[in-house]
Amino acid sequence: MRTTTGWRATGPTALRRTSLERRDLRPDDIAVRVDHCGVCHTDLHALHDHDPHTDAPLVPGHEFTGVVTGTGPEVTAFSAGDRVAVGNIVDSCGACAMCEAGQENFCHSFPTLTYGGTDRRDGSTTLGGYSREYVVREAFAYPLPAGLDPAAAAPLMCAGVTVWEPLRSLGVGPGSRVAVAGLGGLGHLAVRMAVALGATTAVFSRTRDKRDDAHRLGAHDFVDSTDTRRTAAARDSFDVVVDTVSAPHDLAPYLRMVAMDGTLSLLGHLGPVTVEAMDLLVGRKRLSSAGSGGRPATAEMLRFCADHGIAADVEVLPSSQVDTALDRLRRNDVRYRFVLDMSDLD
Amino acid sequence: MRTTTGWRATGPTALRRTSLERRDLRPDDIAVRVDHCGVCHTDLHALHDHDPHTDAPLVPGHEFTGVVTGTGPEVTAFSAGDRVAVGNIVDSCGACAMCEAGQENFCHSFPTLTYGGTDRRDGSTTLGGYSREYVVREAFAYPLPAGLDPAAAAPLMCAGVTVWEPLRSLGVGPGSRVAVAGLGGLGHLAVRMAVALGATTAVFSRTRDKRDDAHRLGAHDFVDSTDTRRTAAARDSFDVVVDTVSAPHDLAPYLRMVAMDGTLSLLGHLGPVTVEAMDLLVGRKRLSSAGSGGRPATAEMLRFCADHGIAADVEVLPSSQVDTALDRLRRNDVRYRFVLDMSDLD
Repeated sequence: MRTTTGWRATGPTALRRTSLERRDLRPDDIAVRVDHCGVCHTDLHALHDHDPHTDAPLVPGHEFTGVVTGTGPEVTAFSAGDRVAVGNIVDSCGACAMCEAGQENFCHSFPTLTYGGTDRRDGSTTLGGYSREYVVREAFAYPLPAGLDPAAAAPLMCAGVTVWEPLRSLGVGPGSRVAVAGLGGLGHLAVRMAVALGATTAVFSRTRDKRDDAHRLGAHDFVDSTDTRRTAAARDSFDVVVDTVSAPHDLAPYLRMVAMDGTLSLLGHLGPVTVEAMDLLVGRKRLSSAGSGGRPATAEMLRFCADHGIAADVEVLPSSQVDTALDRLRRNDVRYRFVLDMSDLD
Repeated sequence: MRTTTGWRATGPTALRRTSLERRDLRPDDIAVRVDHCGVCHTDLHALHDHDPHTDAPLVPGHEFTGVVTGTGPEVTAFSAGDRVAVGNIVDSCGACAMCEAGQENFCHSFPTLTYGGTDRRDGSTTLGGYSREYVVREAFAYPLPAGLDPAAAAPLMCAGVTVWEPLRSLGVGPGSRVAVAGLGGLGHLAVRMAVALGATTAVFSRTRDKRDDAHRLGAHDFVDSTDTRRTAAARDSFDVVVDTVSAPHDLAPYLRMVAMDGTLSLLGHLGPVTVEAMDLLVGRKRLSSAGSGGRPATAEMLRFCADHGIAADVEVLPSSQVDTALDRLRRNDVRYRFVLDMSDLD
């Protein structure tokens, strides 16, 4: 086994610096020195749900960038020293219809998650990117394109692909009309990508002082989502509404904004959702959801971001301040993504 | 005013034969002798919700066929003696974006319903097709194509267009894979239309003795929807799942059957619906709903049905047996649509 250092959960709001083991490299594995790891809402949920006394160890983190430090004998795509990025999936069955279609995120036997997953070979619980080293199959690592800042690119690997997937699968391009509900980690990347894809893009947010940010990100319009007159006036106006609001909320106002045969895509809140069938029926709207993406979409997203100079707005903190990052994220006190600098783990 | 005879609600399960008034013909009105009127689930709901002591009079019926008996001076599309069909919408604003797009069913100021609606000119409550005469704007009446039996065609005007709209708007055609959940008034027409459109079509029903009916209607497969092994095996198998089940039910098994980027369309149950966002996310599925259609779709549906010999399987009863029809419909004791013969009202 290999030994590294990382941050392990000791409670819902606390992590402790500890020694961790990583597997010896299998033939198609690479070892990655983790330099930057984004802090995702999922990490908060995982910590909240974790009981350190009874559960397997929890090391969060599933959007990170770094440098290849070692390769197994069958690795062909990477060499030591290469810049690399890893997202929230590190393996899949490779044989089902979804894997064959390049949608490993929908693997019929469930993809292996970057942390809290079960390794398909040895049955161990995966430990995430809040650590100095990660070992991963090369197929689930991606070259980090030149020109992308490694800290600002880390959140692309979860938040980025989560918004990229619906924008692409719903056909957003020049002439599309896109609304982004909620301007946070997901929303600010959705705005940048939608604008770069050529869509006319509006932001709906209850935080009026994000108006300047919305325009700086490229949005063509900003609407205070508590302004019922303006939201009502947006009826049937958007081909795609990307809903990144993480708290449970009424979907009816957003469904009303969707144009005929358009889609409301839920990204922020992944529990049970209730809608009135009539709100789908009248004006012929569709409801969908998205999160993560397959390998081809992830690679495509990284290339697109490099070509268009898209990355996250990040606040970089030394990893020793992980508790601060989590506390502030819990209060939505970040514009727009915390990234942990792992170099203090050396 | 004109005088006719019809069936008016006196309670949730009873109607009484009574004299009714129809408006004098406006310039673009036609008078229709109603020969056949289908009995729709909506009629049950309307009767259930109706208080005969306090509410406006209720005469149900919104899918009927008959013969033109009179025309206003500006009517151009119809002459006395023409066979005609009327559905669940009899007017709309004509000026909003939806009306201009030929989606009068989504009129932004709400379409005028065939019964229980409010007439846009005189504010009166519309009285439905359980009567011997109806007066309607010619724009909301449709020529009944030659070759369609007027009794069997009546249900096309509500049930038929309700299933036609999603099949067409979701692009069903040769090579499509369609599942129809529930084999009743809506479902049996969905099967016929999907098959005629060229789709490979499967029926999911909990009523095993409908298997022969399903195949007679043209379905390529029949699955007992209580057979969890077979429903699970249908995972990701259908581009469109048309859910015609009228009772509230778990949508998860039907969402799982939807192929990537396919759609579960809810037709049968129009209250609040709850789904797990993860059931939409995994495999990239969409949820929609449909009911009724605009004027172009309605006319197109009638032509398609005439071209393909499609109509409803009906049990025709004299209108004096309307209570029997409603009672039996309430118990799902019909294959597959009751139609009232109004000639006994003369």
